[in-house]
Amino acid sequence: MSTEFELIQQYFTRPTSRTDAGIGDDAALITSSPNNQLVISADMSVAGTHFFQDAEPYDIGWKSLAVNVSDIAAMGATPKWATLTISLPNINHAWLKEFSRGLFACASAFDIDLIGGDTTRGPLNISIQIIGEVPTGEALKRNNAKEGDDIWVSGDLGCAAVGLRLLQKRIPDISGDTQLACLRAINAPQPRIALGLALRKIANSCIDISDGLLADLMHILKASNVGATVSLENIPCLPAIRARLQDADTQRLLLTGGEDYELCFTAPPQQRERLIDVAMKLRLQIVRIGTINTSKKLAVTFQNKHLNISKLGYDHFEY
Amino acid sequence: MSTEFELIQQYFTRPTSRTDAGIGDDAALITSSPNNQLVISADMSVAGTHFFQDAEPYDIGWKSLAVNVSDIAAMGATPKWATLTISLPNINHAWLKEFSRGLFACASAFDIDLIGGDTTRGPLNISIQIIGEVPTGEALKRNNAKEGDDIWVSGDLGCAAVGLRLLQKRIPDISGDTQLACLRAINAPQPRIALGLALRKIANSCIDISDGLLADLMHILKASNVGATVSLENIPCLPAIRARLQDADTQRLLLTGGEDYELCFTAPPQQRERLIDVAMKLRLQIVRIGTINTSKKLAVTFQNKHLNISKLGYDHFEY
Repeated sequence: MSTEFELIQQYFTRPTSRTDAGIGDDAALITSSPNNQLVISADMSVAGTHFFQDAEPYDIGWKSLAVNVSDIAAMGATPKWATLTISLPNINHAWLKEFSRGLFACASAFDIDLIGGDTTRGPLNISIQIIGEVPTGEALKRNNAKEGDDIWVSGDLGCAAVGLRLLQKRIPDISGDTQLACLRAINAPQPRIALGLALRKIANSCIDISDGLLADLMHILKASNVGATVSLENIPCLPAIRARLQDADTQRLLLTGGEDYELCFTAPPQQRERLIDVAMKLRLQIVRIGTINTSKKLAVTFQNKHLNISKLGYDHFEY
Repeated sequence: MSTEFELIQQYFTRPTSRTDAGIGDDAALITSSPNNQLVISADMSVAGTHFFQDAEPYDIGWKSLAVNVSDIAAMGATPKWATLTISLPNINHAWLKEFSRGLFACASAFDIDLIGGDTTRGPLNISIQIIGEVPTGEALKRNNAKEGDDIWVSGDLGCAAVGLRLLQKRIPDISGDTQLACLRAINAPQPRIALGLALRKIANSCIDISDGLLADLMHILKASNVGATVSLENIPCLPAIRARLQDADTQRLLLTGGEDYELCFTAPPQQRERLIDVAMKLRLQIVRIGTINTSKKLAVTFQNKHLNISKLGYDHFEY
C-alpha cells in the first residue's frame, strides 16, 4: 500500500527505551542481556476466526499483543520487544487510531518496545512476534511435571467462554456484574507475567490456558510423560458459573473453554506455602485443582465420582 | 483450526541446530552470541497482494522467507532464527507440502532455524519474523551515506518487474532465456547475505531494493540527510532491457520496479578496489551507478542530460 511508510509513522512508531535502532531501518537492532536466553513466540489473529469483524479496534489491539505476552508469561520470562505485521482491507484512520491505542496500552502495561513491522493490504490479519528474556536455565517448561506435583491455576476459568457467548448474543442468564467480568475476560485478557516470574525455581512446569484447561494440561502431561487427576469442584470460577456446576454445559465450559489466558502450573506440595505467599503479594488468586500421577491419563472427578469427560466431546485425554 | 498441532508437526517441524528449545513449548528458547546485536525484521505476504492466488506454493514458501532474509542482508547481519504465522483458507496437504519444501529450502540455504509459529484458519496470509546477529556496532544502516560516496548496486535491476509482467500475461517481447531469468527474479529472489557480510566496515550505508531503486535510495538519502545523482545508463540490467533504454516504460521499470532484492549501498571511492575484490570472490556483479552529494535531491541523468523523473509518476524525489 502506497502509504505504508506514513501509516507506520503515524500509528506504530513510539519512543523505544531498549532498542539500539528501531523502526526506520531494514531491521531493528537490539542488545540482549548477558546470561539470559531469549524467549520467542508468534501468534496470528484473523478477523472472523479470532475476533468478530465488528469488534472494538482498541480491544483487538490489546488482545493481539496480550495473547503473545501470555506465552512469555507461561515461560516465566520478561517480555521485551515485539514486531507487528498487519494487513488491512482499507485505510480506516479511526480504526487504526483505536487499534494502535489498544496495542500500545498493552505494550506499556508490560513495558514492551514495538521495534518493527509491516503494514499491507489484505483481509484483516494481525500477526505479532514477541521476544522476551529469562535468566539462562530458569525458563518454565511443559516437560518437567513430576509425580505428586500439585496442579494449580490462576484466576477464574470459564469467564472468556461465557464472554464469547455474550458476544455471540447467546446471552446466558447471568447478572450484569458477571457479564462485565466475562466480557473483560474475552476482550481484554490479562497476561500473568508477574506470576510467571514468581514461579521460576518454584514450579516444575507451566502453560497458559489458551485452548481450554484439559487441552492445555494435556500438553504438560504428554511432554512430561505423566498423568493427572483434576477435581471439577476445585476449578476456580465465578459464583454464577459455580451455581450451575451440575450442568454438563457448565462443566464443558470450565474444562474446555479457551482464551482465559490464566496459567496452569505444577509444583511439589512443599512449595504450597511459598505459592500462597506469592499469590498474596500479587493479589492474584491461585487454586490447587489436582495432582500429577504416573497414569498417562487425565481423569476428572466431580463429587468424588469419576466424570466421563468423553461425553464432553473430548475423547483424547489419554495417550 | 483443530489440527493446528498436527499441521505444525507435519509441515513445520524440522531439526534445529542452534535452538535451546523449539516448537512444542509456549515459546522457543535461544541463546544469542556474546558481543553481538540482534537484528530483527518482519514481513507479511498476502495472497492477491504479494503473490497470485495460483502461484506455486514452493515459490511462495521460498519468497516469504527470502524477503525477510534480504532485510537481514541489508544490515550486514547473519540470519539465524525465524518464526512463521500462517492463515490458510483450508487444509490442502499438497499445497502445504510444497510450501514447506520451499520455505525450508530457503531456510537451509541461509542456515536459519524455524523456531516457532502459529497456523490458523483465514484468507491465505504468511507472516515471517526473522532474527539475525551482527557484531555490536558493525550493522550497515541507512543513515551514514557521506558526500562523495559511490552508489553501488548488486546484480541486475528490472528483472523482477519484467517477471511480474510475465506472470500477469502482459508478455514482453523478449527471448526465452531472458524470460526465465526474469521469472526466477520474481519467484525466487536471492537475498545477498554474503555481500552484506562482506560490506561491513567497507560500506557507509546499505538498503535492499524492495520498493524500486529510486524509492529505496531515497530512504538512504533522507536518513543520511544527503542527495545523489544516478546515471541511468550505468544501472545494471539484462541486455534485452538495455536495448530499450530509450523507452520511458523501460526507464520506469529500471528506476521504480520493485522486488529485485539486490543491495544498494554507498562507499567512499577509496574502497573501489576492495569492493571489486569482494565481487570477484562472491562471483556477484556490483556496479557503480552514481554519487552522493549534499543537494538533498535525487537526480537521474541519461546520456548526459537530466532525466525528468517526475514524468515517471514520481514527483517526491526531493525532500
